Amino acid sequence: MSAREAGTLAPSIADIRSRADALAEALDRTAVQRDASGGHAAHERGLIRDSGLLRLTVPQALGGWGADWVLLLQVVRRLAQADSALAHVFAFHHLQVASVQLYGDAEQQQRLQRQTVDEGWFWGNAANPRDTRLKATAVSGGWRLDGVKAYASGSVGSDRLVVSAHIDHGPGVATGGPADLLIGALPTGADGVQVEADWNSFGQRQTDSGTVRFDAVHLPARDVLLGPGQLRTPRQSLRTLLSQSIMTNLYAAIAAGALAAARDYTLTAARPWFDSPLPRLADDPIVQHRYGQLKLQVWPAQLAADAAAHSLWQAQQRGDALTDAERGEAAIAVAQAKVLAHRAAVEVSSQLFELTGASATASPLGLDRYWRNARVHTLHDPVDLKLRDIGRHLLDGVPPLPTPYS
Amino acid sequence: MSAREAGTLAPSIADIRSRADALAEALDRTAVQRDASGGHAAHERGLIRDSGLLRLTVPQALGGWGADWVLLLQVVRRLAQADSALAHVFAFHHLQVASVQLYGDAEQQQRLQRQTVDEGWFWGNAANPRDTRLKATAVSGGWRLDGVKAYASGSVGSDRLVVSAHIDHGPGVATGGPADLLIGALPTGADGVQVEADWNSFGQRQTDSGTVRFDAVHLPARDVLLGPGQLRTPRQSLRTLLSQSIMTNLYAAIAAGALAAARDYTLTAARPWFDSPLPRLADDPIVQHRYGQLKLQVWPAQLAADAAAHSLWQAQQRGDALTDAERGEAAIAVAQAKVLAHRAAVEVSSQLFELTGASATASPLGLDRYWRNARVHTLHDPVDLKLRDIGRHLLDGVPPLPTPYS
Amino acid sequence: MSAREAGTLAPSIADIRSRADALAEALDRTAVQRDASGGHAAHERGLIRDSGLLRLTVPQALGGWGADWVLLLQVVRRLAQADSALAHVFAFHHLQVASVQLYGDAEQQQRLQRQTVDEGWFWGNAANPRDTRLKATAVSGGWRLDGVKAYASGSVGSDRLVVSAHIDHGPGVATGGPADLLIGALPTGADGVQVEADWNSFGQRQTDSGTVRFDAVHLPARDVLLGPGQLRTPRQSLRTLLSQSIMTNLYAAIAAGALAAARDYTLTAARPWFDSPLPRLADDPIVQHRYGQLKLQVWPAQLAADAAAHSLWQAQQRGDALTDAERGEAAIAVAQAKVLAHRAAVEVSSQLFELTGASATASPLGLDRYWRNARVHTLHDPVDLKLRDIGRHLLDGVPPLPTPYS
Amino acid sequence: MSAREAGTLAPSIADIRSRADALAEALDRTAVQRDASGGHAAHERGLIRDSGLLRLTVPQALGGWGADWVLLLQVVRRLAQADSALAHVFAFHHLQVASVQLYGDAEQQQRLQRQTVDEGWFWGNAANPRDTRLKATAVSGGWRLDGVKAYASGSVGSDRLVVSAHIDHGPGVATGGPADLLIGALPTGADGVQVEADWNSFGQRQTDSGTVRFDAVHLPARDVLLGPGQLRTPRQSLRTLLSQSIMTNLYAAIAAGALAAARDYTLTAARPWFDSPLPRLADDPIVQHRYGQLKLQVWPAQLAADAAAHSLWQAQQRGDALTDAERGEAAIAVAQAKVLAHRAAVEVSSQLFELTGASATASPLGLDRYWRNARVHTLHDPVDLKLRDIGRHLLDGVPPLPTPYS
Repeated sequence: MSAREAGTLAPSIADIRSRADALAEALDRTAVQRDASGGHAAHERGLIRDSGLLRLTVPQALGGWGADWVLLLQVVRRLAQADSALAHVFAFHHLQVASVQLYGDAEQQQRLQRQTVDEGWFWGNAANPRDTRLKATAVSGGWRLDGVKAYASGSVGSDRLVVSAHIDHGPGVATGGPADLLIGALPTGADGVQVEADWNSFGQRQTDSGTVRFDAVHLPARDVLLGPGQLRTPRQSLRTLLSQSIMTNLYAAIAAGALAAARDYTLTAARPWFDSPLPRLADDPIVQHRYGQLKLQVWPAQLAADAAAHSLWQAQQRGDALTDAERGEAAIAVAQAKVLAHRAAVEVSSQLFELTGASATASPLGLDRYWRNARVHTLHDPVDLKLRDIGRHLLDGVPPLPTPYS
Repeated sequence: MSAREAGTLAPSIADIRSRADALAEALDRTAVQRDASGGHAAHERGLIRDSGLLRLTVPQALGGWGADWVLLLQVVRRLAQADSALAHVFAFHHLQVASVQLYGDAEQQQRLQRQTVDEGWFWGNAANPRDTRLKATAVSGGWRLDGVKAYASGSVGSDRLVVSAHIDHGPGVATGGPADLLIGALPTGADGVQVEADWNSFGQRQTDSGTVRFDAVHLPARDVLLGPGQLRTPRQSLRTLLSQSIMTNLYAAIAAGALAAARDYTLTAARPWFDSPLPRLADDPIVQHRYGQLKLQVWPAQLAADAAAHSLWQAQQRGDALTDAERGEAAIAVAQAKVLAHRAAVEVSSQLFELTGASATASPLGLDRYWRNARVHTLHDPVDLKLRDIGRHLLDGVPPLPTPYS
Repeated sequence: MSAREAGTLAPSIADIRSRADALAEALDRTAVQRDASGGHAAHERGLIRDSGLLRLTVPQALGGWGADWVLLLQVVRRLAQADSALAHVFAFHHLQVASVQLYGDAEQQQRLQRQTVDEGWFWGNAANPRDTRLKATAVSGGWRLDGVKAYASGSVGSDRLVVSAHIDHGPGVATGGPADLLIGALPTGADGVQVEADWNSFGQRQTDSGTVRFDAVHLPARDVLLGPGQLRTPRQSLRTLLSQSIMTNLYAAIAAGALAAARDYTLTAARPWFDSPLPRLADDPIVQHRYGQLKLQVWPAQLAADAAAHSLWQAQQRGDALTDAERGEAAIAVAQAKVLAHRAAVEVSSQLFELTGASATASPLGLDRYWRNARVHTLHDPVDLKLRDIGRHLLDGVPPLPTPYS
Repeated sequence: MSAREAGTLAPSIADIRSRADALAEALDRTAVQRDASGGHAAHERGLIRDSGLLRLTVPQALGGWGADWVLLLQVVRRLAQADSALAHVFAFHHLQVASVQLYGDAEQQQRLQRQTVDEGWFWGNAANPRDTRLKATAVSGGWRLDGVKAYASGSVGSDRLVVSAHIDHGPGVATGGPADLLIGALPTGADGVQVEADWNSFGQRQTDSGTVRFDAVHLPARDVLLGPGQLRTPRQSLRTLLSQSIMTNLYAAIAAGALAAARDYTLTAARPWFDSPLPRLADDPIVQHRYGQLKLQVWPAQLAADAAAHSLWQAQQRGDALTDAERGEAAIAVAQAKVLAHRAAVEVSSQLFELTGASATASPLGLDRYWRNARVHTLHDPVDLKLRDIGRHLLDGVPPLPTPYS
C-alpha cells in the first residue's frame, strides 16, 4: 500500500503532537553541539523526514495529514523550542507546499503534493524577494533561468525548490516589478542548478540558507505556478502572512525555550549570592519577580501567535471570496503577534542571564544560542515597519499593503 | 408576567451585547463631567438598573439571563471603556451575586437571586478583607454586628450588602483569622446600618466606595452565607479570582478607552508640529510607530483577559471537583492577565499625551481621567506580589495561596 | 543706599542657595492646596519678589547678583521640587531678563536691567512662537500692536512683558516668517494691553499662562529689542536653549520631588501587605529594588541637566564668536538632558504609587500632582523631535536647526 | 637613564590620552579576529606594555606617571571601546597596583611599584573572593599556599599575582571568614604555581581568566600585603570600589563601542527597506529616533561613570580619615553608575541590530561580540543587589556593607 492510499490513515491531532514532541526531543539532544558546528544537518533532516511531518499540510485526499495552518504553526513552535534552525527548515518546507496550494492550478496541486508525499520531498526555496538577480527568458516550452538567489532558506539538501525570477526584457529595459515576476517549482538537482552552502550568520546556523546559482536552467511551462503579469489575489497573498506567522512562532518558541533553559539552570546549577541567607536562588523574591516578568513576555506572545494563526486560517478558509479588507485584518493580527514574539525572543534570551549568574556563560552550555538565534532571525524584515503599519491601521483603518513582507 | 416567569425569555448574547453598548454610550455622554463632580451617580445607576443587566448572571431558572463569567467580564469591559467607575459598581454587584452562588446553600441561592431579579436589587459590599474592625457576636437567631468596614465599593446607594465580619471572642482574645470569619447578606437599609459617602481618591471617583458603620445590626442565621470555621473549598475561593478578573477587565478597558480617546484627538484636534511638512499629525511615521506600540499594550491585555476568563470559567464548571492545583492554574492565568492589564492601563493612559500635544491637557476635555482611574484602581492590591507569584509558580509549580487577593 | 549701589554686596553662592531653600520651603507648605485651587498665586509671587531672587541673573554692576545660568538653573530646580508651577513663573522671569541680555543693545540692557532691580519688576512673556496672531504696524515713533498671544506664561500679575509680533503688511500679503518678527519689551499695564487668566490645564495650574490681548498698543522704538529682518546670531539663539534648559530642570525637579514624596510616604504611612512577615514596607527587597530603579531615573536626569547647563554657559561665554557648530553641541546636550528629565518626570510620578499603596491616592494628599504637572509641562514641545534630532546629530553630525524650540 | 629616574618626565595628560588612542586603534584592528580565536593575546599584551601605560598609576616619584583613578578609568574606557577583554586585563593590572597602594606598607609600596616600572611587570590576580579553596599555612618566614583559585583574571601570561588565601586551621576547623583572610604578592613564576588557561565563556574571550593552582608555594612574610585578622579600613575597602568602577567603565565602553559600530554600519553598509523612498537608511526618522534612544543609554552611563570616578577619587584623597559614611556615598555613586552602564551595554549591544538589518549578522563582521562581551562581563556580580542597595540607601540612608563586591 502506497503512502498515497494511506491518506485516510492520517494520524490524529494528538498523535501528530506526540510525533512533534518526539522529534523535538531528538533535535534537542544535539542542538547545542550543532549550533557550535554550524553547517548542514543531514542526519536531523532525516529525522524530520522519518517523522512523517513533511506531509503534515498535504490534504488527506493526496496522501497527507490534512493539517490546517493553526496546527502546522503549533508544530513549528514545538520543534523550534528545541532547535529554531531546523524548525525553520521544516516550516519553510510547508511554506513551499502552501505556495503550491495557493498559486498552483488543480493539476499542479494534485501532482506536486502527491509527489511530496510519495517521494518524501523536502522543499526549499530560492525566492528571496529582495534579491532580483535571477532572470527568466521565455523559451520554447517554458523559461530559461539565469542568475542567483541568495539567502535561500532550506535550499541546501532540498529535493525541490520554489523559485521566483523576473523576466529579462533585454539590455536597457528595466525589470523587477510585480508584473515581471514568475514563480515556479524545480528539482534542486535540475541541470544548471548549483546550491552553495555559504550561510554564515552568528545565529540560526543550520537553516541551510545557501545561495542558489542558475545557469541556463529550464523551467517547463507546466511547473510555472504563477506566470508573469498574473495578479495575485488577496487569497494568494496569504502566502506572505503564513511566512510571517512562521517567523512569529519561531520567535515565540525561542523565547519559550530560553525561559525553560533559564529555569532549569536556576533550579539545578545556580547558587544564591555568597552573602544570601536563602537556601536556593529560586527562593529570592527578586528572582521570582524577574521570572514573572519574563513569563509576561512569553505568554502574551504565545496567545497572540495563536490568535493570529486563527485569524489567518479563517481568512484562508474564505477562499477566493477573501476581500482586501479581510486579508488586512488577518495581516494586522499577524503583524501584532510578530512584534510581540520578536520582543519576547530578543529580550528573554538576553535577560535570562540575570537569573543564572556568570557560570551560565560557559561556552559548552550554549545558552547564548537563544539570543544569537533570536537576534539573527528577528531581522528577517524590519520590526519598525510592522509597528508603523499597526499604528497606521489603528489610526486610519488602512491595512498593510500586501508585499512579500506584509 | 413577572420577570421570574420571563426567565426563558432571556435575551440572546447578541442582544445582551447591544444592551451593553447602549448603556456604555449613555454613560459615556456624561463621564467627563461626572468624573469632575465625583459623588454618587444616582441617575446612572438607574440607567444600569433599567438596562436589565443587573440580572445578567442570575440563572435563567431564577429569572435571570444566565450569563457565564466570560460574558459578564466582557460586558464589564465594554462599560468600563466608557466609565470605569460605574462599571466597577456594576461588576461588584455581580461579584456579590457570585458570592451568593458560591457560598450560599440551595435555599439562599434561590431566594436571594430571585429577589435580586424581582426587586431589582443593586448589590454592594462591606467585605473589605484588610479592614477587620467589624465584629460579630452570637445572639439568639443569628449574629449581632458592630463596627466599621471602610472602602466598601458600591455600598452607597445599594439595596443589599454582602458583609464580612470577625467573631468577637471578648476582651483580650485575639480574632481576625479565617476561622473567625463570617459572611452574610443584609439589606443596606437594615436597622443600625449607616453608609457614609467618604470616598475621596483622585480617580475612580464614582465607585460609591463608602464607609459602612454597623451599630447592633442583626444578621439573621438564614442570611449567613458562610459561617465561622467553615473552610472555603477551592471552588468557593474562585470568588477571589472573579474579583481579580473584574479588576483585570476594568484595567484593560481603561487602556482601550484611553487609546480610543487618543486616536480621536489625534485625528480630529491635533496639529502637526509647526515646521512639519505633513498635512496631518497622523501621517507622521513616528506617531504611527507610537500608536503601534500602544496597541501592543492593549491587545495582549485583552487577549490575556479573555484567556484568563475562559480558564476561570472552566474551573468554575468543575464544581466541587475542582482541585487546588486546577484552581491554581486558573489563578496564575488570572494573575498574568491582571499584570498585563495593569501595565497597559497605567502606561497607555500616561503615554497617550505624546500623541496629542499640549492642547489635550485642557481640563474640560478630561483626558487625564484615564490615568487617574488607572492609577487609583491598579493599587487595589500590589502588582509586585502577582509578579512574584507568577515567577514562583513558573519555577516551582507552586500555585498562589488562596487569599482574598490571589 | 539704593539697590543699585549695593551691587557689590551681592550675596554669596551659599547665601543664594539658602535663600532658595527658604523660598522652596515656604512654597512647599501650600503647594498641595494651591494646586487644588489653581489660579493666580499673588501671595507666593510676593514671596519670590521678597527673596531677592528676581535679580539673580542681573549683572552685579547693574545691581543684580550676577549669577550664571548654571546657578540659575539649580535655583529653578530647587524651587520646582517644591512647586513646579511657581518655579516656572520664576524661571520665565529670568528668561525674559536673558532676552534683554541677548537681544537688547547696550542702552536697553542697562536701562531695563537696572529698572528690573530698582522697581522689583516681575517679567512675564507674550511671545508664544506658535501663536502668530499678534500683528505689528509701523507708526510714528515705533509700532502699533494689535491681536492676541495665548499661552503667555507668567503674564498674569507681571510688571513687564517680552512681546513678539509679526509685521502686518496689509490685507492679502502673507506674514509670519522670521523676517517679519519683532521682539519688544512692554509694561503689562500699557494702554490697550489686557491679560486674561484663562489657563485651564490639569497640571502646572498656577503658571499664570494667560491670554494677552493687544488693542492699538504703542511699542516705542526704544523698546524694540530685535527689529524685523534682524537675523539672530548663534549667540542670540541661545535664548531657546535657556528656555529648553528651564524645562529640563523643571522636569528633573518634578521627578526628584515625586521620589522624595514617595519615600516619605513609604517610610511614614505605607504598610506592608497583610500577609507579609516584614515589619515595614521599606524592608521589602522588591520595594528597595524599585526605589533603586526610580533613583536611576532621577539621578542621570540631574547629572545630564548639570552637564547641559555647563555646556550652555560655555557657549554663552563665547559671546559673538560662538559658531553654529558650537551652538549645535550645546543644543544637543540640552536636548539629551531634556529627554532624560522628561522621562524621569513622567515615569517616576506615575510609578511612585506602586510603592505607597492605595491609601496614597486620597485627594487631600495631592500626590497625583507630580504626574499632572509632569504630564502637562513635558508637552511644551514634542519629545520625539528631540530624539530624532539627537539621532540625526549622532549619525550625520548635523546640529538641530535653531528654532524657538531647538 | 633608568625609567625610575625618568619619573619627572611623565607624559602630560594629553599625551597619555593620545597613547591610549593609539593603543586602542591597534587593538581595534584585530579585535574581531581575536574574539573569534579566543585564547591568550601575547602580542597585544606586548603592545600594552610597550605603550608605557602599565606604569600609569604608579607615583611619579617611583618612576610612574602618577595618574589618578579618574584618568585611569577614562583610559580603561578608551581601550575597552576597542577591545573590552584586553582593557579588562589592563585595568586589572592597575587594580593590583592599587592593592599594593592600599594594603601595602611603605616598604612594599616602594619596592613593588618601583619594580613594576623597572621590570615592566604585568600584574594579574588570583584573588577571586567567591573561591575559598586556596589555603595558607603558617611556616617559617611566611606562609605556604596550597589549593586553587578559579576565574583569576589576567593570570595567564602575568608576571606578578595578587593572591588571596584563607588560613588553614587544620581538619575540622572552619575557615573562610574575613579574619582568616590573607593577601599577598607573588611572582607568577614562583615554584609550585601553575596557571591553567581554561577560561571558556562566550564573551570577553581574551581576559586570561585562568585557574591558578598552588602546590606548596612559599609566600615570604615581606610579601604579605594584608595579614590575617588585620581589619580593612574604609580606605582599604576602596579597592572594591575601584574594581567595581573598572567594570562600570568597561560596560560603558562596550555600549559606546556598539553604538559607534552600529552607526558605521548604518552609514556605510545598511540599505533602506526595498519599498522606501528614502535614499539612505540614515534618513529614516524612525531610525534617527532609535539612534536618539541608544544615545540616551550611552551618554548617561558615561556621565555617571565620570561622576562616580570623581566621587571615588575624592574618597581616596581623604586617606585614613575616610569614614564609613563617606565611603558609603562613594559606594552608592559607583553602584548607580554601574547599573546604568550595565543596562547600556546589554541593551545597546542587542538593539543595535534593529538599525543595521540582517546582513550585519554575518559572522566575519563580529558585531555580536558587543553583546557577548557585555552579557558575560555584566554578570560579575548581581545587578539586582546593586539596585536593592541603592534603594535601601535612598530609603534609610544605609550605605552598602563593604564586601568584595560592594
